[in-house]
Amino acid sequence: MQTAGKFDMNNSLRDSLERLAQSCRILEMEGHGDMTLGHLSLRDPEGRGFWMKRNRVGLGEIVGTEDFVLVDMDGNKVAGSGGRHSEWPIHSEIYRLRPDINAVAHTHAEFSSIFSASEEALLPYTLDADYFDAVPRHLDEVALINTKPEGLALATSLGTHYAVLMAYHGVTFCGTSIEHMTCVGVFLEKACKVHITAASAGLSKPKLSSDIRKKRNAQIMLPSHIDQSWNYFCRKLAWMREAHRGDSRLFR
Amino acid sequence: MQTAGKFDMNNSLRDSLERLAQSCRILEMEGHGDMTLGHLSLRDPEGRGFWMKRNRVGLGEIVGTEDFVLVDMDGNKVAGSGGRHSEWPIHSEIYRLRPDINAVAHTHAEFSSIFSASEEALLPYTLDADYFDAVPRHLDEVALINTKPEGLALATSLGTHYAVLMAYHGVTFCGTSIEHMTCVGVFLEKACKVHITAASAGLSKPKLSSDIRKKRNAQIMLPSHIDQSWNYFCRKLAWMREAHRGDSRLFR
Amino acid sequence: MQTAGKFDMNNSLRDSLERLAQSCRILEMEGHGDMTLGHLSLRDPEGRGFWMKRNRVGLGEIVGTEDFVLVDMDGNKVAGSGGRHSEWPIHSEIYRLRPDINAVAHTHAEFSSIFSASEEALLPYTLDADYFDAVPRHLDEVALINTKPEGLALATSLGTHYAVLMAYHGVTFCGTSIEHMTCVGVFLEKACKVHITAASAGLSKPKLSSDIRKKRNAQIMLPSHIDQSWNYFCRKLAWMREAHRGDSRLFR
Amino acid sequence: MQTAGKFDMNNSLRDSLERLAQSCRILEMEGHGDMTLGHLSLRDPEGRGFWMKRNRVGLGEIVGTEDFVLVDMDGNKVAGSGGRHSEWPIHSEIYRLRPDINAVAHTHAEFSSIFSASEEALLPYTLDADYFDAVPRHLDEVALINTKPEGLALATSLGTHYAVLMAYHGVTFCGTSIEHMTCVGVFLEKACKVHITAASAGLSKPKLSSDIRKKRNAQIMLPSHIDQSWNYFCRKLAWMREAHRGDSRLFR
Repeated sequence: MQTAGKFDMNNSLRDSLERLAQSCRILEMEGHGDMTLGHLSLRDPEGRGFWMKRNRVGLGEIVGTEDFVLVDMDGNKVAGSGGRHSEWPIHSEIYRLRPDINAVAHTHAEFSSIFSASEEALLPYTLDADYFDAVPRHLDEVALINTKPEGLALATSLGTHYAVLMAYHGVTFCGTSIEHMTCVGVFLEKACKVHITAASAGLSKPKLSSDIRKKRNAQIMLPSHIDQSWNYFCRKLAWMREAHRGDSRLFR
Repeated sequence: MQTAGKFDMNNSLRDSLERLAQSCRILEMEGHGDMTLGHLSLRDPEGRGFWMKRNRVGLGEIVGTEDFVLVDMDGNKVAGSGGRHSEWPIHSEIYRLRPDINAVAHTHAEFSSIFSASEEALLPYTLDADYFDAVPRHLDEVALINTKPEGLALATSLGTHYAVLMAYHGVTFCGTSIEHMTCVGVFLEKACKVHITAASAGLSKPKLSSDIRKKRNAQIMLPSHIDQSWNYFCRKLAWMREAHRGDSRLFR
Repeated sequence: MQTAGKFDMNNSLRDSLERLAQSCRILEMEGHGDMTLGHLSLRDPEGRGFWMKRNRVGLGEIVGTEDFVLVDMDGNKVAGSGGRHSEWPIHSEIYRLRPDINAVAHTHAEFSSIFSASEEALLPYTLDADYFDAVPRHLDEVALINTKPEGLALATSLGTHYAVLMAYHGVTFCGTSIEHMTCVGVFLEKACKVHITAASAGLSKPKLSSDIRKKRNAQIMLPSHIDQSWNYFCRKLAWMREAHRGDSRLFR
Repeated sequence: MQTAGKFDMNNSLRDSLERLAQSCRILEMEGHGDMTLGHLSLRDPEGRGFWMKRNRVGLGEIVGTEDFVLVDMDGNKVAGSGGRHSEWPIHSEIYRLRPDINAVAHTHAEFSSIFSASEEALLPYTLDADYFDAVPRHLDEVALINTKPEGLALATSLGTHYAVLMAYHGVTFCGTSIEHMTCVGVFLEKACKVHITAASAGLSKPKLSSDIRKKRNAQIMLPSHIDQSWNYFCRKLAWMREAHRGDSRLFR
């Protein structure tokens, strides 16, 4: 593995990685943090692989470009000074199978992780589940996904969707942009929390036709809604930082 | 649609809109916030339509008069510089059918939204459900309510009540005053949370007669209780602002 | 009703009422607050009735001696400048029937209020329920308890216990001292939360013999434990105040 | 019992006790606090017994070396100025039976304590339960464990594991180091919370083979993971302190 030193980074990439760092902190704020576990990545615009969050720090501790390492499609670190998470094949194999995807995340979001154990579908008790057409479930006899075949199997389970539940483990989600991936993650976690709360109370299962679910999805999963939600999360992150005196690493 | 510039606003209207802004922040504080979604309105005292929260910002970000736009009964924006939410027909049609109503809100309050999926009635596990005589449920094959017929159907489901659950979506509530509407929203969210918690624990269903429910309602849903609760929420909002250093937009 | 002006108060009474104010804030901190509802009282050491929290403010807003009014056993306010809660008969009738009791509280603590709907006993899933030998349940066709016969019925349901659940409404608890009453309230709320959580998860019901429950109670419901817990709550209240900048009324 | 005065403490022991104090505050932060109840200890490196948290203060109030007392294997306090918890036999008997163990804790962590009532095993709904191979349950007709035979019975139930549920009471956990013990406690509480949430929602029980559970455990319960998690908790404690102005005793 090549040790990476100072790396030439143009302004566009620098800007993207700063937004990816913001995405890490937003996901921490919205319930995706689990100690130092979980990682996000951005497809390298120059085709060298993907920029992945360094290991040994939590999502909420990610500050900027220095917190990412460039990993090639075979898992070699080719730039950046941090450590590489062992689960890099989650990212490489999704980028390989899905040319439309530019950002990938794997987290142990609290309710999504619990819901990963469910053998039933995620139901539309509220609109949150309608941000997705459906969410597949990956059931494999592994814990960490740290080989290419395991990553390929997960990417295959993902199929053409934007999120896949990893049974008894967590969730992987992705998007055409950093903003899209972030919203998919946040909305999925909300939908799983809603489903778990509704199921706990024994509420009867929603009886929505496939047509109405498609209409609901078409009305809400719009680029303008992604933009407005992303901007909202960025402002909320700033309030949190102010409320916590600006000294806290968690919401910097 | 007429672009609205500087608009002449008398002191009484200015004061009302400042209380409506306070209502937005109180509802955010009490669990009604959902990113930039949800909106409140006040019937225009001069009969020009209603003043509605502008779009693209969250309930907790609403600061004052500049955050509202005047919308006529056909959905045209006639004053104010912000954007108009597409669900304006919720407001116009309730004002049309209910001359007693002066304030309307639609939110995705967490527990009310989940409870909207319930096919059973809201039960009086505690006094909170007795602030209402009953809460109807609107079951329609739509997602957003952005046409007059859809708004009319919702207003018809509301009937003579102050709140209506929108199945698999959220809740709409209203009142004779801003203070009344705010308390209806807060009390409903509390009652739904209580019902969901009690049902999760499998507690047996309350066996209260219709007469005792009427007596309970008559003892607690009083103008003086609305006043005292509103004043309490205003003071609580101020504590929150102080506790968060006054810089936070969330509880300003 | 006699309007009360400046009232002569000796140092001992002043000190007691300051501890009663602290009890109000501790109970707010530990989940007993419900807007401006709920009230605490201390038996007047000179036999004139009881000192009761004034109305229109929340438990967390109670600061000191000026927040209490002296109410006689017939409900007349004989000292203090605040308003009197209408549910004074809860207090008068318990003091009348129970000479051992010096402090009484009625609150809508979240989990205790929900658990008041339970037709089954509070079970010892953890030690918290063992702070009580048992908790009776008052089932009456009333909402507010604002007449002497209603207060007497509640006091009769309480019997020789320190807490009584008020079905579909809330809880009343009491003690030989302010500290004892406070701990009873906090421990009961913890036990009800534990019971509701355990029952929601479908855990099997505890199989503890009556003898072992008595032993558990004898080991933990000791004066020294009350003292240590009260002192802990007072310190916790001070941390909260510091953490919230000392300006907040909530944890002053 | 010998009253302990100034005690000679070398730098290594001083450093260990400071990390033990940090462990107390981390456990408070992660849900193990219950007023002044619960205690941690470190095996004395010179064979004189164990250093145990003093009584009458909460886990979050433990600041440094002055908050520990040296207790010998018969329960005599031989150094330190604080009081000794009555449940010292939990510690002495585990150290006696388990030479590999250097740190022991007993707490009333919220979800672990509730889960102690479960007659079913802790299930791997997520990876959290895989940090353990299994968790035994101690079912004894006692409340406090304050005699040697009771401590021995608990240590026997613990067997070769790192955690044991104490039915209807709480949990005891231990480790080869302070860091190990801390992580066992935090991970167990997470796993119990996950199990309770999943069971409440009625999710089907995980169907993982014994082999895959062993593989999952081998992949995640590594010394490097303990180190990274401990370091993360220490940083999180520092953010909390900053966010709460540094004045709060709770997160100092």
